[in-house]
Amino acid sequence: MDALKKRILADGRNLGRGILKVDGFINHQVDPHLMALCGQEFARRFAGLAVEKIVTAEISGISPALMTALEMGLPVVYARKHKPVTMTADIYLTYSPSHTKGDLTQLMISPEFLRPGEHVLIIDDFLASGLTIMALARLVKAAGAELVGIGTLIEKRFEGGRELLSILDVPVESLVTITNMSNGQIEVA
Amino acid sequence: MDALKKRILADGRNLGRGILKVDGFINHQVDPHLMALCGQEFARRFAGLAVEKIVTAEISGISPALMTALEMGLPVVYARKHKPVTMTADIYLTYSPSHTKGDLTQLMISPEFLRPGEHVLIIDDFLASGLTIMALARLVKAAGAELVGIGTLIEKRFEGGRELLSILDVPVESLVTITNMSNGQIEVA
Repeated sequence: MDALKKRILADGRNLGRGILKVDGFINHQVDPHLMALCGQEFARRFAGLAVEKIVTAEISGISPALMTALEMGLPVVYARKHKPVTMTADIYLTYSPSHTKGDLTQLMISPEFLRPGEHVLIIDDFLASGLTIMALARLVKAAGAELVGIGTLIEKRFEGGRELLSILDVPVESLVTITNMSNGQIEVA
Repeated sequence: MDALKKRILADGRNLGRGILKVDGFINHQVDPHLMALCGQEFARRFAGLAVEKIVTAEISGISPALMTALEMGLPVVYARKHKPVTMTADIYLTYSPSHTKGDLTQLMISPEFLRPGEHVLIIDDFLASGLTIMALARLVKAAGAELVGIGTLIEKRFEGGRELLSILDVPVESLVTITNMSNGQIEVA
Protein backbone atom coordinates (compact mmCIF):
# COMPACT_ATOMS: atom_id res chain seq x y z
CA MET A 1 0.00 0.00 0.00
CA ASP A 2 2.30 2.64 -1.38
CA ALA A 3 0.33 5.82 -0.60
CA LEU A 4 0.14 5.01 3.11
CA LYS A 5 3.77 3.92 3.27
CA LYS A 6 4.93 7.16 1.68
CA ARG A 7 2.80 9.22 4.04
CA ILE A 8 4.15 7.41 7.11
CA LEU A 9 7.72 7.96 5.96
CA ALA A 10 7.03 11.62 5.15
CA ASP A 11 4.85 12.66 8.09
CA GLY A 12 5.05 9.92 10.73
CA ARG A 13 7.28 10.46 13.72
CA ASN A 14 9.05 7.97 15.94
CA LEU A 15 8.53 9.29 19.48
CA GLY A 16 10.55 6.51 21.06
CA ARG A 17 9.41 3.45 23.08
CA GLY A 18 7.67 2.13 19.96
CA ILE A 19 5.26 5.05 19.74
CA LEU A 20 4.52 6.13 16.16
CA LYS A 21 2.88 9.52 15.78
CA VAL A 22 0.47 9.60 12.84
CA ASP A 23 -1.65 12.47 14.19
CA GLY A 24 -1.41 14.40 10.95
CA PHE A 25 -3.31 11.93 8.76
CA ILE A 26 -4.96 9.17 10.88
CA ASN A 27 -5.48 9.96 14.56
CA HIS A 28 -6.25 13.62 15.13
CA GLN A 29 -6.17 15.23 11.73
CA VAL A 30 -7.45 12.73 9.17
CA ASP A 31 -6.75 12.67 5.43
CA PRO A 32 -10.07 11.40 4.05
CA HIS A 33 -8.69 10.71 0.58
CA LEU A 34 -5.91 8.53 2.01
CA MET A 35 -8.43 6.73 4.24
CA ALA A 36 -10.64 6.13 1.18
CA LEU A 37 -7.68 4.56 -0.65
CA CYS A 38 -7.05 2.34 2.38
CA GLY A 39 -10.73 1.35 2.44
CA GLN A 40 -10.53 0.40 -1.23
CA GLU A 41 -7.42 -1.67 -0.57
CA PHE A 42 -9.08 -3.55 2.32
CA ALA A 43 -12.13 -4.17 0.12
CA ARG A 44 -9.83 -5.62 -2.54
CA ARG A 45 -7.91 -7.85 -0.11
CA PHE A 46 -11.05 -9.20 1.59
CA ALA A 47 -13.17 -9.46 -1.57
CA GLY A 48 -13.19 -13.27 -1.33
CA LEU A 49 -14.84 -13.31 2.10
CA ALA A 50 -18.60 -13.13 2.67
CA VAL A 51 -18.38 -10.20 5.08
CA GLU A 52 -21.62 -8.83 6.52
CA LYS A 53 -20.39 -6.30 9.05
CA ILE A 54 -17.27 -4.28 9.89
CA VAL A 55 -16.33 -3.98 13.57
CA THR A 56 -13.79 -1.57 15.01
CA ALA A 57 -12.94 0.21 18.27
CA GLU A 58 -13.44 3.89 18.93
CA ILE A 59 -11.73 6.28 18.39
CA SER A 60 -8.98 5.96 15.85
CA GLY A 61 -10.38 2.84 14.22
CA ILE A 62 -13.47 4.69 13.04
CA SER A 63 -11.95 6.45 10.01
CA PRO A 64 -10.41 3.42 8.29
CA ALA A 65 -13.35 1.18 9.25
CA LEU A 66 -15.92 3.65 7.95
CA MET A 67 -14.13 4.00 4.63
CA THR A 68 -13.83 0.23 4.30
CA ALA A 69 -17.52 -0.17 5.10
CA LEU A 70 -18.43 2.49 2.53
CA GLU A 71 -16.40 0.71 -0.12
CA MET A 72 -17.82 -2.72 0.75
CA GLY A 73 -21.41 -1.46 1.14
CA LEU A 74 -21.66 -2.71 4.74
CA PRO A 75 -22.60 -1.27 8.14
CA VAL A 76 -19.82 -0.62 10.63
CA VAL A 77 -20.06 -0.96 14.41
CA TYR A 78 -17.56 0.72 16.67
CA ALA A 79 -17.11 -0.71 20.12
CA ARG A 80 -17.66 2.01 22.74
CA LYS A 81 -15.22 2.69 25.56
CA HIS A 82 -17.76 4.59 27.64
CA LYS A 83 -21.41 3.65 27.95
CA PRO A 84 -23.56 6.38 26.38
CA VAL A 85 -26.99 7.24 27.79
CA THR A 86 -28.56 5.67 24.71
CA MET A 87 -27.05 2.25 25.52
CA THR A 88 -29.79 1.15 27.83
CA ALA A 89 -30.02 -2.63 27.62
CA ASP A 90 -27.60 -5.49 28.21
CA ILE A 91 -24.31 -5.27 26.36
CA TYR A 92 -21.33 -7.37 25.41
CA LEU A 93 -18.44 -6.04 27.48
CA THR A 94 -14.78 -6.91 27.59
CA TYR A 95 -11.55 -5.27 28.74
CA SER A 96 -8.34 -4.43 26.99
CA PRO A 97 -5.12 -3.16 28.57
CA SER A 98 -4.63 0.52 27.75
CA HIS A 99 -1.18 1.22 26.36
CA THR A 100 -1.50 4.90 27.26
CA LYS A 101 -2.71 4.69 30.83
CA GLY A 102 -1.50 1.34 32.04
CA ASP A 103 -4.97 0.31 33.17
CA LEU A 104 -7.89 -1.46 31.54
CA THR A 105 -10.10 0.05 28.85
CA GLN A 106 -13.68 -1.16 28.50
CA LEU A 107 -14.99 -2.14 25.09
CA MET A 108 -18.74 -2.54 24.65
CA ILE A 109 -21.03 -3.54 21.80
CA SER A 110 -24.80 -3.65 21.93
CA PRO A 111 -26.36 -7.02 21.01
CA GLU A 112 -28.70 -5.05 18.75
CA PHE A 113 -25.86 -4.54 16.31
CA LEU A 114 -23.92 -7.80 16.46
CA ARG A 115 -26.02 -10.87 15.73
CA PRO A 116 -25.37 -14.59 16.01
CA GLY A 117 -23.93 -15.97 12.79
CA GLU A 118 -22.98 -12.60 11.28
CA HIS A 119 -19.73 -12.64 9.34
CA VAL A 120 -17.49 -9.94 10.79
CA LEU A 121 -14.38 -8.22 9.49
CA ILE A 122 -12.39 -6.29 12.12
CA ILE A 123 -10.67 -3.13 10.86
CA ASP A 124 -8.42 -1.01 13.09
CA ASP A 125 -5.68 1.55 12.71
CA PHE A 126 -2.82 -0.29 14.45
CA LEU A 127 -1.77 -3.88 14.99
CA ALA A 128 0.76 -3.62 17.82
CA SER A 129 0.43 -6.05 20.74
CA GLY A 130 -2.84 -7.30 19.25
CA LEU A 131 -4.64 -6.98 22.59
CA THR A 132 -7.28 -4.50 21.41
CA ILE A 133 -8.08 -6.59 18.36
CA MET A 134 -8.20 -9.71 20.53
CA ALA A 135 -10.71 -7.90 22.76
CA LEU A 136 -12.84 -7.09 19.70
CA ALA A 137 -12.62 -10.74 18.66
CA ARG A 138 -13.93 -11.73 22.10
CA LEU A 139 -16.94 -9.43 21.62
CA VAL A 140 -17.60 -11.00 18.22
CA LYS A 141 -17.44 -14.44 19.78
CA ALA A 142 -19.64 -13.40 22.73
CA ALA A 143 -22.31 -12.37 20.23
CA GLY A 144 -22.10 -15.72 18.49
CA ALA A 145 -20.97 -13.93 15.34
CA GLU A 146 -18.19 -15.30 13.16
CA LEU A 147 -14.90 -13.49 12.70
CA VAL A 148 -13.68 -13.92 9.13
CA GLY A 149 -10.78 -11.50 8.85
CA ILE A 150 -8.70 -8.72 10.41
CA GLY A 151 -7.30 -5.68 8.63
CA THR A 152 -5.10 -2.93 10.06
CA LEU A 153 -3.52 0.12 8.52
CA ILE A 154 -0.17 -0.22 10.27
CA GLU A 155 1.44 -3.27 11.81
CA LYS A 156 4.29 -2.85 14.27
CA ARG A 157 5.81 -6.20 13.45
CA PHE A 158 8.19 -6.16 16.44
CA GLU A 159 5.35 -6.08 19.01
CA GLY A 160 4.18 -9.60 18.30
CA GLY A 161 0.49 -8.96 17.68
CA ARG A 162 0.41 -11.18 14.61
CA GLU A 163 1.59 -14.16 16.66
CA LEU A 164 -1.08 -13.49 19.30
CA LEU A 165 -3.84 -13.27 16.68
CA SER A 166 -2.76 -16.46 14.91
CA ILE A 167 -4.89 -18.46 17.35
CA LEU A 168 -7.98 -16.90 15.71
CA ASP A 169 -7.12 -18.65 12.44
CA VAL A 170 -8.36 -15.87 10.13
CA PRO A 171 -6.48 -13.84 7.52
CA VAL A 172 -4.69 -10.81 9.00
CA GLU A 173 -3.88 -8.07 6.49
CA SER A 174 -1.82 -4.97 7.26
CA LEU A 175 -1.40 -2.25 4.67
CA VAL A 176 2.01 -1.18 5.95
CA THR A 177 4.38 -3.20 8.14
CA ILE A 178 6.95 -1.47 10.31
CA THR A 179 9.84 -3.72 11.15
CA ASN A 180 11.95 -1.58 13.42
CA MET A 181 11.67 1.64 15.38
CA SER A 182 14.42 0.96 17.93
CA ASN A 183 17.00 3.18 16.29
CA GLY A 184 14.91 6.35 16.12
CA GLN A 185 14.02 5.65 12.50
CA ILE A 186 10.87 4.18 10.98
CA GLU A 187 11.87 1.05 9.04
CA VAL A 188 9.17 -0.25 6.72
CA ALA A 189 9.04 -3.71 5.16
CA MET B 1 -32.51 15.92 3.75
CA ASP B 2 -35.06 13.26 3.10
CA ALA B 3 -32.95 10.12 3.51
CA LEU B 4 -31.83 11.09 7.02
CA LYS B 5 -35.32 12.21 8.04
CA LYS B 6 -36.82 8.90 6.92
CA ARG B 7 -34.16 6.95 8.78
CA ILE B 8 -34.71 8.91 12.00
CA LEU B 9 -38.46 8.33 11.80
CA ALA B 10 -37.96 4.62 11.02
CA ASP B 11 -35.09 3.70 13.37
CA GLY B 12 -34.66 6.57 15.84
CA ARG B 13 -36.09 6.18 19.32
CA ASN B 14 -37.26 8.79 21.78
CA LEU B 15 -35.86 7.63 25.13
CA GLY B 16 -37.43 10.51 27.03
CA ARG B 17 -35.86 13.63 28.55
CA GLY B 18 -34.94 14.82 25.06
CA ILE B 19 -32.65 11.86 24.38
CA LEU B 20 -32.82 10.62 20.80
CA LYS B 21 -31.32 7.19 20.17
CA VAL B 22 -29.70 6.96 16.74
CA ASP B 23 -27.30 4.13 17.63
CA GLY B 24 -28.34 2.08 14.65
CA PHE B 25 -27.03 4.43 11.97
CA ILE B 26 -24.93 7.25 13.46
CA ASN B 27 -23.51 6.65 16.93
CA HIS B 28 -22.61 3.00 17.46
CA GLN B 29 -23.53 1.25 14.27
CA VAL B 30 -22.93 3.62 11.35
CA ASP B 31 -24.54 3.50 7.92
CA PRO B 32 -21.67 4.68 5.68
CA HIS B 33 -23.88 5.21 2.64
CA LEU B 34 -26.23 7.47 4.60
CA MET B 35 -23.25 9.36 6.05
CA ALA B 36 -21.88 9.81 2.52
CA LEU B 37 -25.20 11.30 1.42
CA CYS B 38 -25.07 13.67 4.39
CA GLY B 39 -21.50 14.64 3.48
CA GLN B 40 -22.62 15.42 -0.07
CA GLU B 41 -25.47 17.54 1.25
CA PHE B 42 -23.15 19.54 3.54
CA ALA B 43 -20.75 20.04 0.62
CA ARG B 44 -23.64 21.39 -1.46
CA ARG B 45 -24.91 23.71 1.27
CA PHE B 46 -21.47 25.13 2.07
CA ALA B 47 -20.19 25.24 -1.52
CA GLY B 48 -20.14 29.04 -1.48
CA LEU B 49 -17.69 29.25 1.42
CA ALA B 50 -13.90 29.08 1.04
CA VAL B 51 -13.50 26.26 3.58
CA GLU B 52 -9.98 24.94 4.22
CA LYS B 53 -10.55 22.54 7.10
CA ILE B 54 -13.34 20.59 8.78
CA VAL B 55 -13.32 20.47 12.60
CA THR B 56 -15.41 18.13 14.73
CA ALA B 57 -15.40 16.51 18.18
CA GLU B 58 -14.75 12.86 18.88
CA ILE B 59 -16.52 10.47 18.88
CA SER B 60 -19.82 10.67 17.10
CA GLY B 61 -18.89 13.72 15.02
CA ILE B 62 -16.19 11.78 13.21
CA SER B 63 -18.40 9.89 10.75
CA PRO B 64 -20.33 12.86 9.31
CA ALA B 65 -17.27 15.11 9.41
CA LEU B 66 -15.09 12.57 7.62
CA MET B 67 -17.64 12.07 4.87
CA THR B 68 -18.05 15.83 4.43
CA ALA B 69 -14.28 16.23 4.29
CA LEU B 70 -14.02 13.45 1.71
CA GLU B 71 -16.65 15.12 -0.45
CA MET B 72 -15.08 18.58 -0.13
CA GLY B 73 -11.50 17.32 -0.56
CA LEU B 74 -10.36 18.74 2.78
CA PRO B 75 -8.60 17.46 5.90
CA VAL B 76 -10.67 16.94 9.03
CA VAL B 77 -9.48 17.45 12.61
CA TYR B 78 -11.34 15.89 15.50
CA ALA B 79 -10.92 17.49 18.89
CA ARG B 80 -9.72 14.90 21.41
CA LYS B 81 -11.36 14.37 24.79
CA HIS B 82 -8.37 12.55 26.25
CA LYS B 83 -4.76 13.47 25.59
CA PRO B 84 -3.08 10.66 23.67
CA VAL B 85 0.60 9.85 24.23
CA THR B 86 1.34 11.27 20.79
CA MET B 87 0.07 14.73 21.78
CA THR B 88 3.32 15.90 23.29
CA ALA B 89 3.46 19.67 22.84
CA ASP B 90 1.25 22.57 23.87
CA ILE B 91 -2.40 22.28 22.91
CA TYR B 92 -5.54 24.35 22.63
CA LEU B 93 -7.82 23.16 25.41
CA THR B 94 -11.34 24.06 26.40
CA TYR B 95 -14.17 22.50 28.39
CA SER B 96 -17.72 21.61 27.54
CA PRO B 97 -20.45 20.42 29.93
CA SER B 98 -21.11 16.70 29.43
CA HIS B 99 -24.80 15.98 28.99
CA THR B 100 -24.28 12.35 29.93
CA LYS B 101 -22.20 12.69 33.04
CA GLY B 102 -23.05 16.12 34.40
CA ASP B 103 -19.40 17.13 34.58
CA LEU B 104 -16.99 18.84 32.20
CA THR B 105 -15.52 17.19 29.11
CA GLN B 106 -12.14 18.36 27.82
CA LEU B 107 -11.73 19.16 24.14
CA MET B 108 -8.21 19.51 22.76
CA ILE B 109 -6.72 20.37 19.39
CA SER B 110 -3.04 20.47 18.59
CA PRO B 111 -1.78 23.78 17.14
CA GLU B 112 -0.06 21.68 14.46
CA PHE B 113 -3.42 21.08 12.82
CA LEU B 114 -5.29 24.35 13.29
CA ARG B 115 -3.45 27.37 11.93
CA PRO B 116 -4.04 31.11 12.18
CA GLY B 117 -6.23 32.35 9.37
CA GLU B 118 -7.51 28.92 8.31
CA HIS B 119 -11.15 28.89 7.24
CA VAL B 120 -12.93 26.27 9.33
CA LEU B 121 -16.26 24.52 8.93
CA ILE B 122 -17.53 22.72 12.07
CA ILE B 123 -19.48 19.52 11.43
CA ASP B 124 -21.09 17.52 14.25
CA ASP B 125 -23.84 14.96 14.69
CA PHE B 126 -26.18 16.90 17.00
CA LEU B 127 -27.07 20.52 17.61
CA ALA B 128 -28.82 20.41 20.98
CA SER B 129 -27.78 22.97 23.61
CA GLY B 130 -24.99 24.11 21.28
CA LEU B 131 -22.42 23.97 24.08
CA THR B 132 -20.14 21.40 22.40
CA ILE B 133 -20.14 23.36 19.16
CA MET B 134 -19.50 26.56 21.07
CA ALA B 135 -16.50 24.85 22.69
CA LEU B 136 -15.19 23.87 19.24
CA ALA B 137 -15.68 27.48 18.12
CA ARG B 138 -13.56 28.63 21.08
CA LEU B 139 -10.76 26.26 19.96
CA VAL B 140 -10.98 27.68 16.43
CA LYS B 141 -10.74 31.19 17.82
CA ALA B 142 -7.88 30.28 20.17
CA ALA B 143 -5.92 29.10 17.14
CA GLY B 144 -6.56 32.36 15.34
CA ALA B 145 -8.45 30.43 12.67
CA GLU B 146 -11.69 31.72 11.19
CA LEU B 147 -14.98 29.92 11.64
CA VAL B 148 -17.05 30.20 8.47
CA GLY B 149 -19.93 27.77 9.06
CA ILE B 150 -21.52 25.09 11.21
CA GLY B 151 -23.30 21.97 9.99
CA THR B 152 -25.07 19.31 12.04
CA LEU B 153 -26.98 16.21 11.11
CA ILE B 154 -29.79 16.65 13.61
CA GLU B 155 -30.97 19.78 15.37
CA LYS B 156 -33.13 19.49 18.47
CA ARG B 157 -34.81 22.82 17.90
CA PHE B 158 -36.35 22.93 21.36
CA GLU B 159 -32.97 22.95 23.17
CA GLY B 160 -32.05 26.43 22.02
CA GLY B 161 -28.63 25.74 20.53
CA ARG B 162 -29.31 27.81 17.44
CA GLU B 163 -29.97 30.90 19.58
CA LEU B 164 -26.71 30.32 21.49
CA LEU B 165 -24.69 29.95 18.28
CA SER B 166 -26.20 33.08 16.68
CA ILE B 167 -23.54 35.17 18.41
CA LEU B 168 -20.95 33.52 16.13
CA ASP B 169 -22.61 35.11 13.10
CA VAL B 170 -21.97 32.23 10.68
CA PRO B 171 -24.43 30.08 8.74
CA VAL B 172 -25.78 27.13 10.75
CA GLU B 173 -27.17 24.28 8.67
CA SER B 174 -28.95 21.24 10.08
CA LEU B 175 -30.00 18.40 7.80
CA VAL B 176 -32.98 17.42 9.95
CA THR B 177 -34.73 19.56 12.55
CA ILE B 178 -36.67 17.95 15.37
CA THR B 179 -39.28 20.27 16.81
CA ASN B 180 -40.76 18.25 19.63
CA MET B 181 -39.98 15.12 21.62
CA SER B 182 -42.00 15.93 24.72
CA ASN B 183 -44.90 13.64 23.88
CA GLY B 184 -42.91 10.44 23.34
CA GLN B 185 -42.94 10.98 19.59
CA ILE B 186 -40.27 12.37 17.27
CA GLU B 187 -41.74 15.39 15.48
CA VAL B 188 -39.71 16.57 12.52
CA ALA B 189 -39.99 19.97 10.82
